[in-house]
Amino acid sequence: MTDINLNHLAIVVDDLDAALRFWRESLGLTGGAVQSVPSETVDIAFLELGDAHIELIQPTTADSGVAKYLAKRGPGLHHLCLEVPDLDAKLAELHSQGYELINETPREREGRRYAFIHPKSAGGVLLELYESKATDPEE
Amino acid sequence: MTDINLNHLAIVVDDLDAALRFWRESLGLTGGAVQSVPSETVDIAFLELGDAHIELIQPTTADSGVAKYLAKRGPGLHHLCLEVPDLDAKLAELHSQGYELINETPREREGRRYAFIHPKSAGGVLLELYESKATDPEE
Repeated sequence: MTDINLNHLAIVVDDLDAALRFWRESLGLTGGAVQSVPSETVDIAFLELGDAHIELIQPTTADSGVAKYLAKRGPGLHHLCLEVPDLDAKLAELHSQGYELINETPREREGRRYAFIHPKSAGGVLLELYESKATDPEE
Repeated sequence: MTDINLNHLAIVVDDLDAALRFWRESLGLTGGAVQSVPSETVDIAFLELGDAHIELIQPTTADSGVAKYLAKRGPGLHHLCLEVPDLDAKLAELHSQGYELINETPREREGRRYAFIHPKSAGGVLLELYESKATDPEE
């Protein structure tokens, strides 16, 4: 065991209602309230998976990064988000080793610091890193 | 919370050594002993992720399903494996609802019952279902 944990696994979908029918009604996962995120032109829904989540993402326009991904590769697994204890230190370490970071310094969204690692550096996986919170009652 | 849990998340790679350098040495996950699985013509390595695992898969021939996937789509996220309490009941339920199963009856490997759901039924995700074990000391 390490201090690295799964936060969420994201799946890009072309039909959020159909995806919720499968993952929630048929498979049996809980959660799934649909949230619109106009700033990122996506609708999203989080399903509970133990202490982590599956995030369903449906683009609402054709020109976002995730919409282009969907158009090119079809629906499916999109990115993986892990929590690490010290995000700045980890990014500096990865950068010094020659790995390519999409965000060399962390961004912040709703109090959560995060950064993306380029898929070419993570074996084809779009990897998001969150900074762990010491106590995180809502997750 | 449900009784559905993540067992593993599989990543297909073209260079297992390079993948281990990233995920283990640089990112900091533990585990990663390389196992050859000649029956499936792959080398695999499991990294610990909380109670679950990341499975790295490198095909060792060019003609397996996973090798063709790698050739077509490149390295990256390959499949998701969730544990469900009653695998037969879940497969029957999904089948009755019109979802396409790759394995309509569970297969078994090393005492573990499993079945794959077709990506076309799971929103583009190749989904493996394991039957949960009542007590599972090694996982």
